[in-house]
Amino acid sequence: MRDSVHTIVIGAGSGGLTVAVGLASLGRPVVLIEARHVGGDCTNVGCIPSKTLIRQAEVRGAHDPGGALAEVRRKRDALRARETAEVGAIGHLSLITGRARLAGAQRVVVALPEGGERTLSARHIVIATGARPRMITIPGLPAARMLTSESIFELPQAPHHLAIIGGGVIGVELAFAMRKLGSQVSIVDRGPRVLARHLPDAAAIVAASLRDRGVGVHVGAGVHSYTEASETLWIERDGQVTPLAEVDYVLVAVGRVRNLEDLGLAAAGVRYSPHGGIVTDRAGRTSASGIYAVGDATTTSAFTHSANAQGRRVVQQIAFPWLPVRAPEPCYPSATFADPEVATAGMDQRQIAARYHPALVRRIRVDLAAQTDRGYTDDMQRGVIIVDAVRLTGVILGVTIVAPRASEMISLFTLAIQQGSSLYALYRVVYPYPTFSSGIQKVADAFLRETLPALRGELVAYLRYRWARPIAPAEHPADGF
Amino acid sequence: MRDSVHTIVIGAGSGGLTVAVGLASLGRPVVLIEARHVGGDCTNVGCIPSKTLIRQAEVRGAHDPGGALAEVRRKRDALRARETAEVGAIGHLSLITGRARLAGAQRVVVALPEGGERTLSARHIVIATGARPRMITIPGLPAARMLTSESIFELPQAPHHLAIIGGGVIGVELAFAMRKLGSQVSIVDRGPRVLARHLPDAAAIVAASLRDRGVGVHVGAGVHSYTEASETLWIERDGQVTPLAEVDYVLVAVGRVRNLEDLGLAAAGVRYSPHGGIVTDRAGRTSASGIYAVGDATTTSAFTHSANAQGRRVVQQIAFPWLPVRAPEPCYPSATFADPEVATAGMDQRQIAARYHPALVRRIRVDLAAQTDRGYTDDMQRGVIIVDAVRLTGVILGVTIVAPRASEMISLFTLAIQQGSSLYALYRVVYPYPTFSSGIQKVADAFLRETLPALRGELVAYLRYRWARPIAPAEHPADGF
Repeated sequence: MRDSVHTIVIGAGSGGLTVAVGLASLGRPVVLIEARHVGGDCTNVGCIPSKTLIRQAEVRGAHDPGGALAEVRRKRDALRARETAEVGAIGHLSLITGRARLAGAQRVVVALPEGGERTLSARHIVIATGARPRMITIPGLPAARMLTSESIFELPQAPHHLAIIGGGVIGVELAFAMRKLGSQVSIVDRGPRVLARHLPDAAAIVAASLRDRGVGVHVGAGVHSYTEASETLWIERDGQVTPLAEVDYVLVAVGRVRNLEDLGLAAAGVRYSPHGGIVTDRAGRTSASGIYAVGDATTTSAFTHSANAQGRRVVQQIAFPWLPVRAPEPCYPSATFADPEVATAGMDQRQIAARYHPALVRRIRVDLAAQTDRGYTDDMQRGVIIVDAVRLTGVILGVTIVAPRASEMISLFTLAIQQGSSLYALYRVVYPYPTFSSGIQKVADAFLRETLPALRGELVAYLRYRWARPIAPAEHPADGF
Repeated sequence: MRDSVHTIVIGAGSGGLTVAVGLASLGRPVVLIEARHVGGDCTNVGCIPSKTLIRQAEVRGAHDPGGALAEVRRKRDALRARETAEVGAIGHLSLITGRARLAGAQRVVVALPEGGERTLSARHIVIATGARPRMITIPGLPAARMLTSESIFELPQAPHHLAIIGGGVIGVELAFAMRKLGSQVSIVDRGPRVLARHLPDAAAIVAASLRDRGVGVHVGAGVHSYTEASETLWIERDGQVTPLAEVDYVLVAVGRVRNLEDLGLAAAGVRYSPHGGIVTDRAGRTSASGIYAVGDATTTSAFTHSANAQGRRVVQQIAFPWLPVRAPEPCYPSATFADPEVATAGMDQRQIAARYHPALVRRIRVDLAAQTDRGYTDDMQRGVIIVDAVRLTGVILGVTIVAPRASEMISLFTLAIQQGSSLYALYRVVYPYPTFSSGIQKVADAFLRETLPALRGELVAYLRYRWARPIAPAEHPADGF
């Protein structure tokens, strides 16, 4: 391996692999540096094991939780081995195990696991170091009883009573899965509700579904301490401390921390904030020339699919710098694999409030359980499509779907938003019967029903508020995950 | 009720209800004539009971087939009662029970169930009489053992061994459901494969899934006779007669016949063929002035969602005749609720072959089981997305998806086809990870990988074949369902 290559990629997770494999297959010599496992979070501790667990929990239920967890590890290890072998077989791509840090212009120093260091240089350096679970301390809790979203898959059996600290996406997904595997599950969240980043209506449906399944949902509550003798987790709400009995494991899922320490970012002139991540432009360039960043380490991405999409842009920017990177960043959807699933596309409430006057936005809400025949045939308890659109024009701003396989339904909206399509276009689409997607027809119907009979008023409102200042303060860069 | 109204609708199924309710809610006096039940096939013998059965079979499995069938009837009857009450409560809408026939210009005669006739007149007459199962005779088979897709829901228990004559959409959907409820199931089809109207690749996946579940699939075979004493159904293949043992019920699902007899179509000047149905233009107008047709009775529709879409067009044409009905008919998707589901959008193979030279069409095929991470986490056995697109431009012509909830995934393609979007547009969409929809990304990737490195050749081929005559003969009007 040469010590001077075309591109160095730090981190072999989803984003880093996309860049490294993409450039290598275009014939550019690439060195990929990884401190732990090829595949990063997604393969090793994230999407792959968690979605396999969700599937196994669905299929095996409480009959065989140990088998479900073993199958999760088997599939994860098999995929890791396959990906490692595949990466090793790619021409122009060298994998180095070690911990990297930036060292001056176009140089990277790698601390090798066997000791010693190695210095490499490259024209382009791509930072894809990702993130890790944020940890907290719980007085009295032995380390062996504390789990993260990474270590939970190592359990030989489902816990008797799993307390989950944090009701975000990861906490909620694992709550459903472990409950289906037979564990008693309690969620403890400081905020007023689970899934704080989702619309309250969507979060309420998921919370109701959790409660229907017997998951304890304790919001507005913090964790206080643990008593080993009685296996009691004490939680605190409004100054009152109450017990959760017989808790044998505590999963900490209170957010994630970007892996930015000891990278030498400041010395290399890479602008970042410890809280917000590395700042990049739409082509993935940082403030330091020749240094790029993708994935969880940046301000904008918290998903495998967005890390991949950023990686593709960086490949294009490095390999074909004369080709303009398309103006806006693509519309990143989100998917929460709860039961039912929650998927979103377009702007969230904060972004809409920061850009549009509230009187310009019309919200349409269709109850999938009550208003679709698929909801009737399938005994759906709760489900919803919520669309925020510009009045009169029907241009779609933001969408939330709560339904089984919402993650598959959302892409129609991602395409529509990306193309600037309006609800009039969705009105002309014919949806198969009977599906939950026919709820999209009802969204469009409702918009037309509210708009067409009052065209004059809608036009006046549109003209009046089109350029009106929003009431909400201008948005700050995303705080990340 | 007046004997002279604005519009008479014959048939209270999906298409007829859409027209009747639509016009009545716009204040036009409507008489709706129905010989049997409000809701038509969809509510009473079609989508609603069949999809409820599929769902019940999924949830209850073989533990409680009698309960599943009873629940199907309960939900069907509840919906029928609700719809009947709702129709009865709509202003400007009168429901008459009876059998209608056209009688000269703008006149309809209704044979009433209590005897006698009643003559009504209207400016507009809409025919929405639908279709019914095609019947065949099986020598030796007692009538009590013969089922149709209508009568099967009346069974008190799952059959011991159900033979299904006809491996089309209805036969295949019911085969999966009844197998899950514990019946032994055998499909007998004269053609070379099940799901003859779908792509061979898609049909092969469904056939393999049927066989995996222990459903007997006998293709190239006809039904010969039945011996009551031994409960044997004899089937004939290549001149050989072989037995299917212990068959207690035979479901005939060999297609559907339009309800066009005794309607007085010819005398009224309505052009139709007994095989192809009533000919309409895109606004639903027949060859006779003031007479419209929608739904299964026409040449173009065989689905609830297409009947509804046609109904909307007729409402627009009748209520707002000055508003042009949008040029092309919308893109009608199809959905087959097999396991996995099969969904299609755009042109089928015959239509593509009739309009384009084969050298102009590029087929992309992505194996969802092997090529997506969701296929990996979910242990998917088989699944596929097949897209036919114009070379170079990537304009999408036809799509088939075989996957769980393919019926929800297809609408992205319906929108894309309707808007003339290309695979380049789908390439720029970010799909949530991990989903089967990320296979759509792989379709677009594959198209670009085959196109971009060979742009010159693709351009030459495009220019050469763009206006070339197709090789296949021009298409005939659809034969219907």
